[in-house]
Parts: sequence; C-alpha cells; structure tokens
Amino acid sequence: METDAQSIMNKLGRQAKDAAKAMRMANTRSKDEALLLAAAVMRREMNEILAANALDMKAADENGLDSAMKDRLMLNGDRVEAMAEGLEQIAALPDPVGAIDNLRYRPSGIQVGHMRVPLGVIGIIFESRPNVTADAAGLCLKSGNAAILRGGSEAIHSNRAIAACLRRALVDKGLSQNAVQLVDSTDRALVGALLRSDSYVDVIIPRGGKSLIERVSAESRVPVIKHLDGICHVYIDAAANTEMARNIALNAKTHRYGVCNAMETLLIHRDVATDAVQSLIQAMLDKGVEVRGCEQTIARCAGMGVKEASDADWATEYLAPVLSVRIVDSLDMAMDHIDAYGSGHTETIVTEEYEAGNRFLREVDSSSVMWNASTRFADGFEYGLGAEIGISTDRLHVRGPVGLEGLTTQKWIVLGHGEIRG
Amino acid sequence: METDAQSIMNKLGRQAKDAAKAMRMANTRSKDEALLLAAAVMRREMNEILAANALDMKAADENGLDSAMKDRLMLNGDRVEAMAEGLEQIAALPDPVGAIDNLRYRPSGIQVGHMRVPLGVIGIIFESRPNVTADAAGLCLKSGNAAILRGGSEAIHSNRAIAACLRRALVDKGLSQNAVQLVDSTDRALVGALLRSDSYVDVIIPRGGKSLIERVSAESRVPVIKHLDGICHVYIDAAANTEMARNIALNAKTHRYGVCNAMETLLIHRDVATDAVQSLIQAMLDKGVEVRGCEQTIARCAGMGVKEASDADWATEYLAPVLSVRIVDSLDMAMDHIDAYGSGHTETIVTEEYEAGNRFLREVDSSSVMWNASTRFADGFEYGLGAEIGISTDRLHVRGPVGLEGLTTQKWIVLGHGEIRG
Repeated sequence: METDAQSIMNKLGRQAKDAAKAMRMANTRSKDEALLLAAAVMRREMNEILAANALDMKAADENGLDSAMKDRLMLNGDRVEAMAEGLEQIAALPDPVGAIDNLRYRPSGIQVGHMRVPLGVIGIIFESRPNVTADAAGLCLKSGNAAILRGGSEAIHSNRAIAACLRRALVDKGLSQNAVQLVDSTDRALVGALLRSDSYVDVIIPRGGKSLIERVSAESRVPVIKHLDGICHVYIDAAANTEMARNIALNAKTHRYGVCNAMETLLIHRDVATDAVQSLIQAMLDKGVEVRGCEQTIARCAGMGVKEASDADWATEYLAPVLSVRIVDSLDMAMDHIDAYGSGHTETIVTEEYEAGNRFLREVDSSSVMWNASTRFADGFEYGLGAEIGISTDRLHVRGPVGLEGLTTQKWIVLGHGEIRG
Repeated sequence: METDAQSIMNKLGRQAKDAAKAMRMANTRSKDEALLLAAAVMRREMNEILAANALDMKAADENGLDSAMKDRLMLNGDRVEAMAEGLEQIAALPDPVGAIDNLRYRPSGIQVGHMRVPLGVIGIIFESRPNVTADAAGLCLKSGNAAILRGGSEAIHSNRAIAACLRRALVDKGLSQNAVQLVDSTDRALVGALLRSDSYVDVIIPRGGKSLIERVSAESRVPVIKHLDGICHVYIDAAANTEMARNIALNAKTHRYGVCNAMETLLIHRDVATDAVQSLIQAMLDKGVEVRGCEQTIARCAGMGVKEASDADWATEYLAPVLSVRIVDSLDMAMDHIDAYGSGHTETIVTEEYEAGNRFLREVDSSSVMWNASTRFADGFEYGLGAEIGISTDRLHVRGPVGLEGLTTQKWIVLGHGEIRG
C-alpha cells in the first residue's frame, strides 16, 4: 500500500519536475494567456463544475459533515465566477521571474547581481475549500512553478473539475499540463508519500486547520512554509490616543472573528484612564464579545461582567467573540507577555510616543509588527501583494503574507569579460 | 544516554533562546565592540589557544589522523592572528539588523515595509577546522543571532579556548555570553539532540564533508541551510572567444583543486575549432590534470593521453586534478547536461553571442550562473558580502554564498495613523 502510494507520487513528482523545468523558462505572455484562458474555460464549464460539486455535497450529506464544512465545500455560480476573477487578477500582476536586482561592479571587474527565479515544484496540501485549487494553482503558474495539489477527499470531484480547466488552458497555450497536477485519489497514504518526496518537491505549503499543519510539519522531509497560530495582540500604551486605541481594538477584535489576524489578547498599560478602559470593554461586551480579564481588569471593570482569565487564555487563539485582557505595568511587560504567549503572527502598539513605538517595532519578533493600525491589515491584498497563498509564521525564507515573490527564490548572476581569479 | 543528551541540549537551547532575545535588540556599537575585543583577547590569549591546540594535535597523533586532517586542525601564530583579523573584518561590515526596505503608502493610508531581523538561534555543526568557531560565532554575533557551535571532537580543546575568548568579550561588553555556546562534549548523541531541538533552534548550518551534510539533512527536525556538491561546469559556446575560454577554463580548474567552486566538467560546442580544443586540453595535461573525455573528445585529441569518461564521471565532484570533458551539439545539449548531472552550484558560459548568454543566464538553475567569468568567483568575498558562513546549494531562503544577510530574515512593519479595516 505504502509502496504503491510512493510510486504514484514519484510519477507525479517526475512529471512535476519536468513541467517545472519548462515553466521556469516560460515567458510572461504565455503564462498570463494561460491564466486568462483558464478563467474563460472555468466560466464555460460552470455547469460541469457545479455538477461535480453536487456529487461532493451529496457525499457530504451522507457522511454527516457539519454545516460549516459544507459551507466551505459548496460552490455556486458566484463562487465559480470569483475563482475565475481571481485567476484574471493573478494574470494582471507583474511577473516576478527573471527580475534582476542590485547588479553592481566588483573590484575584480565582474558584475554581480541577483535574478529572481521560481522555487520549482510546490506541493499544496489543503482541506475542504475547492477554490484553493484555482487560487494556489494560479499563483504557482504565474510564478513559474509546477504545483502538486492534494485537496481534501470530501472535495475530490470539485477539485478534479477545477484542475481540469487549468490543465486544458495550459495545453492550449503550449505549456505543460503537468504544471498543475491534482493528486486524484482520496488515499491518505498519498499525503505521507508527498511529504517524503524530497527528491521531487521543493516546498510544501499546507493550508487548513491546526491538526493538518502539525501533521505536515512533523512528517515532512520537504521544507514547509506554514501558518500555525494567530494569537495577535493589541497593546494600548500609556501614551496612546484613547479614541484611536478604542477604534483599533474594536476593529481588530470584531471586524471578523474567525480570521488569523484578529486580536485575541488586549494588553493595556496601567496608566490608561479607568474610564477609557471601561468604555472600551463595554463596547466589546455590547458587540457580544465575552471578555476574560486579569485581576486588575476585573477590578477596574467591576460589575460589568468580565470573566476571569486563566493562564491558558493567554495562549489561546479563540477565532471567536472571546477576548482576553491584561493590564500591564510597562511597555517591557507588554513585550514580555507577547514573547511568552504570542504566536509570532501580528501585534500592534497604539501610542503617540516615538520611543515606545520605535522600541515595539524593533523588538517585537512577529511576522507583522504595527504602530497605530489594526491587526486586520496583515493581509496580502492590504500589503500590496495582489494575492496571497497564505501567511507564514515561519522564520526562514518568507514571513507574513506570502504572494508571488514568496514562491520564488534568487540566484546569483555574474557578467564578466573574461575575468579570472588571481 | 539519549535522554541525557537531549536534556543537556535543551539547557543550551533555552540559554540560546534567551541570549537571542537580548541579541536581537543589541545595538551595532556593542556588537562591534564585542567583536573587536574578542580579537584582542584572542591575541592576548595566543599561548593558551596554542597550548589547547597542542593537546588536540597530540590526540590526533595518538589516534592516527592523516596529515590532511592534522593540517586542518593545526593552529599557529599566523592562524590565530588570521582568526582575530577575521573578527575585526566582521566588525567593520555594515550591520544588516533593523534596516527598513521599501516602506510605502498603501491606499488604506498605512505605510508598509520590511525590517531586517536576526534569524534567532543558529546551530553550526562542523568538523576539524577550529577557525570555524571564531568565524561562525563572529558572523552570528554581528547579525544579532545566538550560536550553538558543535565542532569536531578532535578539535575540542582548541574550540573551547577560542569560544572562551568570544564569551569573555561578550560579557565585558554587557552582552550575554550565551550568544556563543560551544557544545562542550564529544558525545555524538549531542549532534542528534541538536538536530531534534526544533523548539529552540531556528536553523542548522552544517559545514564539512558530504557524509556530515547528508546525516544532518536526513535527521534534522530543524530547517537546514546546506552545501552539498560543487559539480561546476564551464561551457564553451560556438561563439566563444577561444583565448578567453582557455583562460577561464584553466583558472576554473587549476587555480585551486580542492574547492567547491572549481570546474569539474568542461562542455565544448562541437563547432569550436579542433586546434583550440587540443591546445586547451594540452594545457590542462601540462598542469598535471588528468583528462577524461567523451568519445568525440578522445577522437579530437587522439594520442594526447585523454582517458575515457564513464557516466559516473559526469556526476563526480573530483576536488582533485581530474577533469571530465564532453563535446556537445548545442547550447540546449549543454544545458540539459548541466540539468542532468550538475549540483546546482555554479556554471559558466563563455560566449560572445547575446542570445546564448542570455538564455544560459535565465535557464540554468544553479545558485550562481556566470557569463564570461571563472567559476572561482562564486565566493562571498568576491561577491562583496565581506565574509561568508558557507555556500548554500538549497533553494529556500538563501542560495549561493551566505553572508550576514543570509543569517537574517525580514518582518513586515506597518506604520499607521489609527487606520482600521472597513
């Protein structure tokens, strides 16, 4: 069984490696034309895609999937249209491949610079949302990579129909259809085989819940770019504009609850006026947010209905209308709290003071560190990447929102005139 | 045993993590002063270092180490002075930490940019050369990281004496001595424990022979930046200036034999004149290089003493006065050969033709790709990095010579004025 899975995966791997070689030389025009054609094919094949999705939805009913999962799985005309538009947006982004940076002369006479090149073969392992098939494949295609996509078994028919649109467009534009390959089987052993394919696959990007990410990280022999937790903090400094602080904290918590860049813990300097603290906490409660506070928070907000936070709360990503609140003695205590309990995703300081803001920016070790802005801005579109394949909470290669550039690497190029080393 | 090793390593890991937190906030002046002081301490403690090295050399004799290993292990006044100068050179390099790139306004009103920050805790696993202790620790220190150094057991006394100089300088300048920790034991289980320390260590850099690198890659739970093989190619195109080609090929092969950026295979377009081929091969033979050719090379150089190359030759890093030579039909055949047999290190084309040079630069997938220059230039000093901790043949994070910047990563910073997401 295991050996079968590995031999299936090795075949996909070899095909992907060949396709990656062709893709790294593909010019911008043919990649963009393939993306635009894939969008057109997707609109034309709308009925086939929806029929395939209906098979998945029927199986979901039979297998008793919960309504949240079924909502993620479900496609309709609008959602297919959104996928097609996503591909057109990727086509409109600048092509990162081949860009040369910082080419300069050295004393030896050679010119040295960096050229941006594709990573090679990218394995994407994801769960129920079928739109990831189109988004991830589109980003890999534009950045000159070959993608091996392994979606959730519950979405296999939908994923197959979507991948077919992309592959047809690749062939029509003279590119290798194996630049987009779907692992067309629900055998779970294939995930393990993909994670062992370090001779063929250059990087694995898992997208899904924490248990998927943890399994992939623990097992993978291939380097992984991953997003683990989003335990994001807003710290309201003593020198904060309290009106601004209130707006940012409310936006960071209540704009959307289920997203990784939502605030989970609010840290407030002890010198912030009690009426400002009470007014902010009351606004949270009014929005239906359950507030769990430290002793001092409870003391300051007596009678308002603040619950007691346990130590586990500081380390919890609620992804829900729940907020933990802690009063801190100093900027240092706030940064120590973030260091101890944060997940390295996104943290914001609200302050009007130069020194506090600068120290926070420099010293907090997260993928995004902000000053007087909502954590909700940690996002590929907001940062100007045009699209994102995910957000990395890793340290190597790429941190924070990952766009086309994160799917590339750089090689050195040297232009000489016959120079030799003496 | 295993558990003991892991608990020793966990202690080093925790200490390193604390030190890394302090180091990422350390200012440039204190890091530079610590480096300069370490150099001074090293000169002052010259006799102690040489005495420690004498113990290692005595053990090397007793254990029957070969003369090449003993030469790598041996320290004398000049070599200690060179280490001290190396630290002073690192102090003189610009500090990459805290540099902000590409800060720009977004339509939402926020400013978004990248700030360069240290990687964190870096594990260096190396073999007999004790100077790696000073070089690697110096680069990690300057780039704001904490280093855990695991040298070869044959150099333990030397490494201990050198690390002590660095640690003394760190303390004297108010920095944590645990920014430089030596694994002060020859127990091999500690290497395994270090490779499993993914909660404490951010990246492992192995430096040494192929078996070390392979063991580290296979076992490590921590991301690895590594250098595997250096099977470098020079391709002499039909449109090459043959005099230039001759100089480059001779330099790439014979300037130094035992280095990773030396040429191992020479590819020659079939249209290059036979007398030019003969003259180049004769020059190689005159330098004492053994030449192993394909059928056509042997035919063109009949009677000159060219041996027959086997398929294994194309995939061999000789690190010796041996050269494999192949006549190819076209630029594409040359690039296919490099793709099939190369190690992704460094390749050069020699040509006067725009199209051939541009295609080679774009399409060859190696960490350094050159046009009309010797492969020997693939080097941190030659590229202007000031110093290098190694050369990466990996694709993620950093490729080619790795200097201070390769030991850092970037975080996003956002400067706002109270912006929230709508």
